[in-house]
Amino acid sequence: MTAHDYFQPDKNKDLVFERAIDVPRELVWSAWTDPKHVVKWFTPAPWRTVDCEIDLTPGGIFRTVMRSPEGQDFPNIGCYLEIVKNERLIWTDMLQPGYSPSPNGFFTAVLTLEKLPQGTKYKVLARHKDEETRKKHEDMGFHDGWGKALDQLIELCKTTLKA
Amino acid sequence: MTAHDYFQPDKNKDLVFERAIDVPRELVWSAWTDPKHVVKWFTPAPWRTVDCEIDLTPGGIFRTVMRSPEGQDFPNIGCYLEIVKNERLIWTDMLQPGYSPSPNGFFTAVLTLEKLPQGTKYKVLARHKDEETRKKHEDMGFHDGWGKALDQLIELCKTTLKA
Repeated sequence: MTAHDYFQPDKNKDLVFERAIDVPRELVWSAWTDPKHVVKWFTPAPWRTVDCEIDLTPGGIFRTVMRSPEGQDFPNIGCYLEIVKNERLIWTDMLQPGYSPSPNGFFTAVLTLEKLPQGTKYKVLARHKDEETRKKHEDMGFHDGWGKALDQLIELCKTTLKA
Repeated sequence: MTAHDYFQPDKNKDLVFERAIDVPRELVWSAWTDPKHVVKWFTPAPWRTVDCEIDLTPGGIFRTVMRSPEGQDFPNIGCYLEIVKNERLIWTDMLQPGYSPSPNGFFTAVLTLEKLPQGTKYKVLARHKDEETRKKHEDMGFHDGWGKALDQLIELCKTTLKA
């Protein structure tokens, strides 16, 4: 697969978020793969994630429910594609559990955690079907949103998860 | 994953094609995973498959080009999701190589090959995003088409591949 470089970002259709953080990748992995942690950091405040379901296997469910400050719920359901513990997590809402096509899929996310001497290189590749969808995701505040959520994840790792 | 029964057919959105055949599943697997074999049986005559590209890894490309009797080409590009040699092959055109969302995805296919005393139980679960898409696939001649293609696959297995 590497020979084909399938994960090289496509400037027209993909978005990339990348940051070096001072948290070990094992803690980042826990924050991403345990529902009881996900609800604590996943959504930039004042939004909240009020429910999360994870079956960490290819084709398994990844479901979240985000609640707006006004109390409106936004459920999202997708499935995992690849799981390499502490290194790489790929999921998509283009497919539902069992890889069943979604009626309203939006993107695929490739999360990569690279070990650094002082922590982790945290990288997200967000892939879309076309330039318009990429633009829409960017305008929704992709970089700001993923940045704030990561701040919350780091805070969680340094407090609750460090033990 | 089995506990969740993600692959139980949904009558509204899925189609199932199943037949017991007198060919060992190792030959069926070869017919499905080697491009030089695929072009020989994949499309019910008088249509032809004139090109095929396979990278048999999760996220890897599965590309075919079908040619109508009038000479019009219909390319289709998707990627593999799960590969269990001789047992199970899952791919989708909802995602392109590297799991990048497709602009015009149509279905996910779950091919299961079960060993029988006299051959193989050949089963295809075709999953769609909604009832309308399932109906469209059915009206396109799903059962007849997969049946004719399987007849061609069996013929190929019994002649070229048996050695």
